[in-house]
Amino acid sequence: VRPRFYSPDVTAAGIFPLPDDESHHLQHVLRLATGAELSVFNGRGQEWGGRVTVSPKRGPVMVELIDEIVPPPEPPVLVTLGIGVLKGDQMDTVVREATMLGVAGIVPFTSDHVTVSPRAWASGAALTRWTRIAVASAKQCGRAVVPAIAAPEPLPVLIDRVAAEVRLICVEPRLTAATSVSGALGPCAGRAAVLIGPEGGWSDEEVALAQRGDYRCVHLGPRTLRAETAPTVLLSALWAVWGWS
Amino acid sequence: VRPRFYSPDVTAAGIFPLPDDESHHLQHVLRLATGAELSVFNGRGQEWGGRVTVSPKRGPVMVELIDEIVPPPEPPVLVTLGIGVLKGDQMDTVVREATMLGVAGIVPFTSDHVTVSPRAWASGAALTRWTRIAVASAKQCGRAVVPAIAAPEPLPVLIDRVAAEVRLICVEPRLTAATSVSGALGPCAGRAAVLIGPEGGWSDEEVALAQRGDYRCVHLGPRTLRAETAPTVLLSALWAVWGWS
Repeated sequence: VRPRFYSPDVTAAGIFPLPDDESHHLQHVLRLATGAELSVFNGRGQEWGGRVTVSPKRGPVMVELIDEIVPPPEPPVLVTLGIGVLKGDQMDTVVREATMLGVAGIVPFTSDHVTVSPRAWASGAALTRWTRIAVASAKQCGRAVVPAIAAPEPLPVLIDRVAAEVRLICVEPRLTAATSVSGALGPCAGRAAVLIGPEGGWSDEEVALAQRGDYRCVHLGPRTLRAETAPTVLLSALWAVWGWS
Repeated sequence: VRPRFYSPDVTAAGIFPLPDDESHHLQHVLRLATGAELSVFNGRGQEWGGRVTVSPKRGPVMVELIDEIVPPPEPPVLVTLGIGVLKGDQMDTVVREATMLGVAGIVPFTSDHVTVSPRAWASGAALTRWTRIAVASAKQCGRAVVPAIAAPEPLPVLIDRVAAEVRLICVEPRLTAATSVSGALGPCAGRAAVLIGPEGGWSDEEVALAQRGDYRCVHLGPRTLRAETAPTVLLSALWAVWGWS
């Protein structure tokens, strides 16, 4: 398998510099020499095979991209995952697995029971980190699309802003309005938005707000899932019903 | 929510000693006093509510179990998960999540591309550790069943030994015999066995062996999943098709 690199600026075959961090990774971690074969994807679904042409002591590695590669097909529905902000390593898990499971976008949100302090993402470093994890996960799973990750926003803003044909909010199964996620799904060929609460769950007002925004209450079975596992379970169930590609 | 304790010997209401590790957890971690409410499950699907009656300086905590509790329903199919032995923390993740996702049993197996040395589980400490993780996960997710975990055995032994109405082996999607897992499933009301390979995947001989044992080749979509995530994705897809309870 050729090593894969990420360069968001590439849109066609040709000769290009790799971004700084990718140049560094190529030279100092993978230690590829001039002439080594590789592939480069742009995070928007395109990928090319090629080779290293110049690998200088200073400045970016140059690569020649020759043949366009057909990447693995994307899922049949563009799913935006809304996730209540979790603490560091849990959020890393969510970003890594949701990327691997084909989400189109991730929107972290703040809500009544989010316990992570806004200072944790105020500087923008958290968003940079999540994006880096999404790129790394895309590399590893063979995906040529990197999901867009938004800066954390309040739940009502997300509900107002994200347009989708199918809207689901994951709730505890004891909530009487909830049906199992697989039972709730009809065919969908467009966009879906799915909400998963923070570790502390939802307040009643939040569930009511989502319902007014046409979100349907669904559950993921009778056992209590860890917050960082719920997105993987939900996405797997969606593809089991809608098809994986 | 009442704290939950595990005691495999309880089969009816009455007054019982808690096992040593559970006594220790009650006294020194949760610091419950005499009279405190709790519940005790036996790992085979039964649970009772009660209270602490004696909490001595030495010897086991005594509990009085009064009313039987109806635990969350188990999934409609008894699924045995065969998993190629992974390294420590990945195996912990698989056991924790598979328990949370309702498997009936877990059978770690050795195969051509398993890279973990048999010395890692020779002493039996690994099996003890996995069982402890399964108990902890059952406590956390509200399940009253603790899946049975077997000591690692060679793949051919597993294939020969585990009886099941539905048999699936997860393979790379490029394998021509593979269909998507959700496409492959008809109704099932009995037992299923599912095989997930180690990080290095399957040898051709192993896939052929499984097929001769009536295992059907299925895939989990076109992206490469991490070995420790694949069981969660597979189980979620099974419940999306067969129902969660």
